[in-house]
Amino acid sequence: MYKHMKSSPPLVGVIMGSDSDLPVMQEAAKILEEFGIEYEVTVVSAHRTPKRLVEYASQAEKRGLKVIIAGAGGAAHLPGMAAAHSALPVIGVPILTKTLKGIDSLLSIAQMPPGVPVATVAINGAKNAGILAAQIIGVSDEHVRAKVQTYRQSMEREVLARVKKLAAKRYKEYLKDV
Amino acid sequence: MYKHMKSSPPLVGVIMGSDSDLPVMQEAAKILEEFGIEYEVTVVSAHRTPKRLVEYASQAEKRGLKVIIAGAGGAAHLPGMAAAHSALPVIGVPILTKTLKGIDSLLSIAQMPPGVPVATVAINGAKNAGILAAQIIGVSDEHVRAKVQTYRQSMEREVLARVKKLAAKRYKEYLKDV
Amino acid sequence: MYKHMKSSPPLVGVIMGSDSDLPVMQEAAKILEEFGIEYEVTVVSAHRTPKRLVEYASQAEKRGLKVIIAGAGGAAHLPGMAAAHSALPVIGVPILTKTLKGIDSLLSIAQMPPGVPVATVAINGAKNAGILAAQIIGVSDEHVRAKVQTYRQSMEREVLARVKKLAAKRYKEYLKDV
Amino acid sequence: MYKHMKSSPPLVGVIMGSDSDLPVMQEAAKILEEFGIEYEVTVVSAHRTPKRLVEYASQAEKRGLKVIIAGAGGAAHLPGMAAAHSALPVIGVPILTKTLKGIDSLLSIAQMPPGVPVATVAINGAKNAGILAAQIIGVSDEHVRAKVQTYRQSMEREVLARVKKLAAKRYKEYLKDV
Amino acid sequence: MYKHMKSSPPLVGVIMGSDSDLPVMQEAAKILEEFGIEYEVTVVSAHRTPKRLVEYASQAEKRGLKVIIAGAGGAAHLPGMAAAHSALPVIGVPILTKTLKGIDSLLSIAQMPPGVPVATVAINGAKNAGILAAQIIGVSDEHVRAKVQTYRQSMEREVLARVKKLAAKRYKEYLKDV
Amino acid sequence: MYKHMKSSPPLVGVIMGSDSDLPVMQEAAKILEEFGIEYEVTVVSAHRTPKRLVEYASQAEKRGLKVIIAGAGGAAHLPGMAAAHSALPVIGVPILTKTLKGIDSLLSIAQMPPGVPVATVAINGAKNAGILAAQIIGVSDEHVRAKVQTYRQSMEREVLARVKKLAAKRYKEYLKDV
Amino acid sequence: MYKHMKSSPPLVGVIMGSDSDLPVMQEAAKILEEFGIEYEVTVVSAHRTPKRLVEYASQAEKRGLKVIIAGAGGAAHLPGMAAAHSALPVIGVPILTKTLKGIDSLLSIAQMPPGVPVATVAINGAKNAGILAAQIIGVSDEHVRAKVQTYRQSMEREVLARVKKLAAKRYKEYLKDV
Amino acid sequence: MYKHMKSSPPLVGVIMGSDSDLPVMQEAAKILEEFGIEYEVTVVSAHRTPKRLVEYASQAEKRGLKVIIAGAGGAAHLPGMAAAHSALPVIGVPILTKTLKGIDSLLSIAQMPPGVPVATVAINGAKNAGILAAQIIGVSDEHVRAKVQTYRQSMEREVLARVKKLAAKRYKEYLKDV
Repeated sequence: MYKHMKSSPPLVGVIMGSDSDLPVMQEAAKILEEFGIEYEVTVVSAHRTPKRLVEYASQAEKRGLKVIIAGAGGAAHLPGMAAAHSALPVIGVPILTKTLKGIDSLLSIAQMPPGVPVATVAINGAKNAGILAAQIIGVSDEHVRAKVQTYRQSMEREVLARVKKLAAKRYKEYLKDV
Repeated sequence: MYKHMKSSPPLVGVIMGSDSDLPVMQEAAKILEEFGIEYEVTVVSAHRTPKRLVEYASQAEKRGLKVIIAGAGGAAHLPGMAAAHSALPVIGVPILTKTLKGIDSLLSIAQMPPGVPVATVAINGAKNAGILAAQIIGVSDEHVRAKVQTYRQSMEREVLARVKKLAAKRYKEYLKDV
Repeated sequence: MYKHMKSSPPLVGVIMGSDSDLPVMQEAAKILEEFGIEYEVTVVSAHRTPKRLVEYASQAEKRGLKVIIAGAGGAAHLPGMAAAHSALPVIGVPILTKTLKGIDSLLSIAQMPPGVPVATVAINGAKNAGILAAQIIGVSDEHVRAKVQTYRQSMEREVLARVKKLAAKRYKEYLKDV
Repeated sequence: MYKHMKSSPPLVGVIMGSDSDLPVMQEAAKILEEFGIEYEVTVVSAHRTPKRLVEYASQAEKRGLKVIIAGAGGAAHLPGMAAAHSALPVIGVPILTKTLKGIDSLLSIAQMPPGVPVATVAINGAKNAGILAAQIIGVSDEHVRAKVQTYRQSMEREVLARVKKLAAKRYKEYLKDV
Repeated sequence: MYKHMKSSPPLVGVIMGSDSDLPVMQEAAKILEEFGIEYEVTVVSAHRTPKRLVEYASQAEKRGLKVIIAGAGGAAHLPGMAAAHSALPVIGVPILTKTLKGIDSLLSIAQMPPGVPVATVAINGAKNAGILAAQIIGVSDEHVRAKVQTYRQSMEREVLARVKKLAAKRYKEYLKDV
Repeated sequence: MYKHMKSSPPLVGVIMGSDSDLPVMQEAAKILEEFGIEYEVTVVSAHRTPKRLVEYASQAEKRGLKVIIAGAGGAAHLPGMAAAHSALPVIGVPILTKTLKGIDSLLSIAQMPPGVPVATVAINGAKNAGILAAQIIGVSDEHVRAKVQTYRQSMEREVLARVKKLAAKRYKEYLKDV
Repeated sequence: MYKHMKSSPPLVGVIMGSDSDLPVMQEAAKILEEFGIEYEVTVVSAHRTPKRLVEYASQAEKRGLKVIIAGAGGAAHLPGMAAAHSALPVIGVPILTKTLKGIDSLLSIAQMPPGVPVATVAINGAKNAGILAAQIIGVSDEHVRAKVQTYRQSMEREVLARVKKLAAKRYKEYLKDV
Repeated sequence: MYKHMKSSPPLVGVIMGSDSDLPVMQEAAKILEEFGIEYEVTVVSAHRTPKRLVEYASQAEKRGLKVIIAGAGGAAHLPGMAAAHSALPVIGVPILTKTLKGIDSLLSIAQMPPGVPVATVAINGAKNAGILAAQIIGVSDEHVRAKVQTYRQSMEREVLARVKKLAAKRYKEYLKDV
């Protein structure tokens, strides 16, 4: 399995039901990379590779993972089933679907029964899944916590810069620039 | 596991995520009983007993089951995961939920990805799940096929009897009788 | 009516409300072909050719069909009406609609009343309809059952191959290849 | 079949999928009675008595019916199938369902394909179905048209009477009276 | 106001909230033309020209109109308000909206309160609105009734011709032709 | 028409489609009373008393009204049509419906076309409609503005008092008290 | 912060969660400009610049603003939070979202709890937000009221001009012109 | 503020928009108690006590909290705004609403924009929020992790006990016992 750096084992497993989810799910990987958190990216299909799902989720904790991020669309069972097989916090990313626009994915992931939670983010919200994973790791890792804080501040600064730019121009000129 | 008759092994496994689904799911059992089809009724929680799910579904075919009927509500993963672990036809029954009225259950069960179908029936449609199981078994079992035909005819007769009764009275009197 | 092979009568009838559904519904035909199951493909409009619907569904069993796959969109009555006129298992494929994205089709097909089930698959899930038909026929046909098993294994292998490929590359390179 | 008066044949057929729909559908009958329009009330199940549906709808015009009012819930195929088998105007009444609150019924009835319209009224809108039938008959029947006009005026007067009553009291006292 | 033929006054008023609805609503006009029914096409905005709405609807009956077809999108008040101001049968066409895909239009038109029905057709179902208007006029006009019957038969024939064509070719070749 | 005080003409017209909406709509009246804003409460049915609607809305401004609050359910046209006939700010209150739980009312009121806004509040949000009317009047009326401020502060204090009470007890005891 | 004219302080604050909302929100600015109402346009992100939100909303009244127009999409908290921090009337514009088509934005904005209203307009209804702001200001500003009236009349005239044009041509020719 | 034990500061803040949410939200408190995790329960209204929200969320981390659980209904802004003001992981509990059954709450909480995640659980899923908080704390606290594992095992055992009980009786007898 892929580890984005050789030096240390991954803390976050970013899994998805199909490699067609990768263009969305890569956002989780990118932000973890930005935060310097070791992660792995792989495909685990709840429906097409159910044994791999059991294996992946059951061994995740032993392998040193701290958080699982699972993306899936439609009848999106991957996050919930990962949560069934592992006591780690599982973050679910509902993938936008062509037909029902992801409302099926969202409900399939969020509406878990008592006992087995999935931390659901927005439809296609892979970036937020990565940030949430960092926040979770940051609970006991001051370094990561600081990275999250820095990220949030730079995000704020970026908005404030746009505020300034918009203040300096009429909105019509601003729109021409975009 | 329960078998409703001693004489022969069950052909249909009626499973559900929680025993709170039993009042709904018993309709499947009742109709199978009416058709004289051996069945078993048990609880298999995809989320709270995931190992049992793997075991139940993986061994279903070897144990002689021909069809699995699985009922679940909310983020309803049981039918889809049973279908992932078994090549038998799986019929999914979306259970009515207190919050979203079963639309979550319906989408979680019906919107399966290519490769792993679940034969979804209506929300709380356990009776139809039983009939569908009988129709499936009836494909190669003339006796069951005849039972299904008889059932359909009696259903038709019952409606026609009500047609007559309603024709014989003004609808207002008919309503008083009900 | 079309039969894809001269040698033996069709076991599965793949019908649809309009030939505009054919690009979706052909997926059912393709997979049946892959499984070596005889099928026929034809148009039966519940609303525009209602007599043909009665005839087709009423005679399906006598003609040797074992399963009907019916696709329809919007106020999708074809699967349910086929199920009303035939005791064969009927699989319904809700077709994606331009306006309501197939939620109308899904509800029109899945929400059947007690007594007359339709085995509903996902919106545009014609491929799964074909697989489900094969699973149903496989209940009593060892040969077809083996084909389904083989298909499932190859599907699993295909995912595992992608897992390997993704493990061998950084996800960014993987995405470039796709 | 029931005719509410001996003297003349019914002009409106009020049909429903099940006698459990009668408490809702009687509102259509009541208003037709108020308008002095001959009608009949009967049960025609698209799914459980499909042959009766074909017969009823095909012969409706010959039997002298001018309009069909059809109520059904869930996968509500009765109105659309009546419209498929008869060229008469068909009014569809979506029945409130326990699970999806009638949105399934509404979409199953309203979303008809080009060529075969159903005049859909509100969920449980049987009274309006009766009024619409009267308006349709009124197109060529001055007497009925006058009745509809009278009904509309009395409806207006009734509201205006409440306006007066509310104006004469503080709203709190008005509420106590209700 | 436009009348498509000089010789006789229009029987059907085809109105819409905005001329941007004309590409959809023209389907009603076309089919009425095909049936030889006099009609007029005009814009009446419930919100931007409310006085015109009152005038148009109030005088429709006196002007000889028999049916009003009203198309509107979003908070679609035109059909319901036309029905409030006229006792003629009003057919409502919910227009597809960019945001909510017409579900807003559908509910705004179909969910009328007791007393004032609107005969609602499918989202963008202007053609069916035209056919329904013809069916309504046909209740007392044998000539129009015959036209509707002919139309339905030709529609049936057209489907049957496609059935034949599909039977004569493998579906793959059929698809190439389309 | 009712005015809650003799001394001065009403500033806010609280209208509703039916007196069955009064139990909900009285919340608007109550809060206006609390703010000392003159108001009137009456029934105006867009569908059953359309002439009254035209009259009421057209003359509202001349009669001295500053804001119209209109509540309606289902195909809720009253707020939008009031806005069509009057240039005053119109606040729309979607009334909870038995069938679709007010989503029909909400969409019928909120989704107004460009040019004719309705200030929509929550389903059954009559109290907020009253507060919003006060805020609007408060734009130029310091006295009302102060009342709104006072109301907001007392609301805040009330929550803070509950915070204290909850802090002083274990939540279990708190729940017993409620 | 931007003021579109040097001469006088802005009366309306047009804020949005992201500059990506500007293409929609500029419609509010344009119409305010047309009405000659001073406004400012700026970005305030409830989530990324929460302190700025508090500051902006808390000081809005002191700074002379009379109305706040706030646009946001998805979990759209900006309008409601602006209303929490300011007693000014707040108009909320739900922005169309790629995934759920703005139904998420609409519900997040409209469904405010008792005590803190947001005047919600249609999805992407920024133009109407501007008109509503003008109507609110017009309550005490005769000049603005007159502008709104003029706008409404010109809107009516524009529709009537299209009515004439459509009357002068067959609809087919009219469509060619568009 | 309440701390359930004197000995140590709370690690989890369980907040809600109104004390009417307490019957639902207490489930989070109960499970945290079961896990021996210090927590506090309080009311923070985003809309009625916005300053308290800013204060609570901004100081949460300094006060030693590790996770915030926030429950809210309708236009549910509390979880998202807590996440805006604090870098701690925030778990959102959508509260069931009387009108839209919590779909408004779910979308208002889950659909957060990139940069500021909320870990959303099921509608009324307060128990799962508590478990998720424990899983998050368990990432670095072996003791809590063990408690979660024990809980999951006892949950599994409980289901298996029911499986046995159901196997020992016919389902009809089982249902009588419940």
